[in-house]
Amino acid sequence: MSNEELSVVGIGNAIVDVLSHTDEVFLVQENLTKGTMALIEEDQAEALYAKMGPGVEVSGGSVANTIAALSSLGSSAGFIGKVATDQLGDVFSHDMKAMGVVFDTPRLEDGPPTARCLILVTPDGQRTMCTFLGASVWIAPADIKPELIAAAKVVYLEGYLFDRSRAKQAFRQAAEIAHKAGTRVALALSDMFCVERHREEFQDMVLNHVDILFGNESEIKMLYKADSFEDAVYAVQENCELAVLTRSEKGSLIVAPEQRIEIAAEPVPRVIDTTGAGDMYAAGFLHGYTQDKPLEICGRMAAITASEALSHLGARPQICLAELLEEKIGNAA
Amino acid sequence: MSNEELSVVGIGNAIVDVLSHTDEVFLVQENLTKGTMALIEEDQAEALYAKMGPGVEVSGGSVANTIAALSSLGSSAGFIGKVATDQLGDVFSHDMKAMGVVFDTPRLEDGPPTARCLILVTPDGQRTMCTFLGASVWIAPADIKPELIAAAKVVYLEGYLFDRSRAKQAFRQAAEIAHKAGTRVALALSDMFCVERHREEFQDMVLNHVDILFGNESEIKMLYKADSFEDAVYAVQENCELAVLTRSEKGSLIVAPEQRIEIAAEPVPRVIDTTGAGDMYAAGFLHGYTQDKPLEICGRMAAITASEALSHLGARPQICLAELLEEKIGNAA
Repeated sequence: MSNEELSVVGIGNAIVDVLSHTDEVFLVQENLTKGTMALIEEDQAEALYAKMGPGVEVSGGSVANTIAALSSLGSSAGFIGKVATDQLGDVFSHDMKAMGVVFDTPRLEDGPPTARCLILVTPDGQRTMCTFLGASVWIAPADIKPELIAAAKVVYLEGYLFDRSRAKQAFRQAAEIAHKAGTRVALALSDMFCVERHREEFQDMVLNHVDILFGNESEIKMLYKADSFEDAVYAVQENCELAVLTRSEKGSLIVAPEQRIEIAAEPVPRVIDTTGAGDMYAAGFLHGYTQDKPLEICGRMAAITASEALSHLGARPQICLAELLEEKIGNAA
Repeated sequence: MSNEELSVVGIGNAIVDVLSHTDEVFLVQENLTKGTMALIEEDQAEALYAKMGPGVEVSGGSVANTIAALSSLGSSAGFIGKVATDQLGDVFSHDMKAMGVVFDTPRLEDGPPTARCLILVTPDGQRTMCTFLGASVWIAPADIKPELIAAAKVVYLEGYLFDRSRAKQAFRQAAEIAHKAGTRVALALSDMFCVERHREEFQDMVLNHVDILFGNESEIKMLYKADSFEDAVYAVQENCELAVLTRSEKGSLIVAPEQRIEIAAEPVPRVIDTTGAGDMYAAGFLHGYTQDKPLEICGRMAAITASEALSHLGARPQICLAELLEEKIGNAA
């Protein structure tokens, strides 16, 4: 695949998820806030893993999930992210390439191991995440290949990268390259606590550098210190050209300068695990967006794509998403 | 947990499964026979993995799956098997211990990596397996702890161990220890081609050393070179005290000296993946058997336990099996 054909290039953490079913009591015992992501160090990760139930390992990482899903939808996509030279690094790399994603960031030698995210799934399907960032934050400006970004219609950046300065530097560099090349910049707010940690920088980023913002209700409220979702929507409409705001079972809202479009959630027989639903939503939206579909269609594609992730453990699609879209909306896709 | 309380100790390959959805064409291209297990070397495993789609990693191993499920059912269980000192070895060990299984076989240092089984799942839910045995066949007589086997009601042996001489030696030693200690010996035939490779040894084993035999239709027919299932049933009834024969959607047949009991399959809304269904069946049966339940109840428990494995990718239970049994058959469990 030539880089010139890329729809979206993602830059984010390269993580393998370890998913395990648990109950609410365990979250309380471990002092974890349900539905959020906490950063942990390697020794904490080992201690928590030892207490967790049996797991299922699936490649993850928020933007990486979106990129994998874009590929499954039939969009050409690339990813920039850092794994180590270990077995989990093999798993992550394999899964990206097997999806047809252009992924050739050099691996980290002699550093921390590949990042992993311990994901505790409660009976309501909600996921609570503890991430050991390991090798993934060793992504550096040298890993940002300008020609890859310049060749893409959209570069999709992970908010989580703001948590480490080297990664943040790579992030900013990618945005600059994109601006010069006419590549649109999309940003995932990632997590409400991540937004809280870097609120001012995110506000500046959204106002001056971001063309498409992805976030959920709590993230967008946190970004603008808004008491209500309505206030947050008003703020983002002033600040950003296009915002795509997910609201779980309430569906989502697409916010453009002159319009707000409500998208209904796609019904799901039984929610097994919400891990990656937001990432899949972004994939469906960007798949439509990069094909210049009307925003309503982009939103509908997003809702359908997100629904697939809810039906199984793990974020990565377990069926061909292009076929799912074809089945659900036929020619509109 | 004291070893004296163990219901079942399993001895088998310690494997991490890599599951991936595929189509029939891929199986043909790779010269694989659907529904069977092929042994492959490390370089073949790497070549096949590179061609496979994205995967989900879940601890596996036939007898190891049964032991994990027994623990989930509330039976006390132990496992003897060999992993390497690598990340997949960490995953396997964690998952066993997290299930509450007694597992302390020393890991292999400076040898091949932890075994992995590449599992290709076709749209009909059938699985086709290619196993790189790696560290798992380095299990040796020294790993067979006599006190563990002597303390258990049943020792459950994996037919696949016959594929390597060192492992086979460990297998025979375990059977001898069991006989002396009054521990009953159960054997899983594992795979029709495995049975074909070692037919005479298996026949001798079943006749002289096995108290409970587990197999499916094609395995039992292969064992006795029988043209029909009925002929195979006749042969096994002459040769073994108790045989438990699974027949996919046709349910199963329990064969005792004076009786044959047909057990209906538990209905499953949609079969996602048959990986581990036979292993889960053995778990449900042994759970009842070690509690001296009537054979009909053992069979019913087995059918319910097997049904859970069909509903998701991977063999290991994703819900508490004790709760599932309680819900389905209440006090009878």
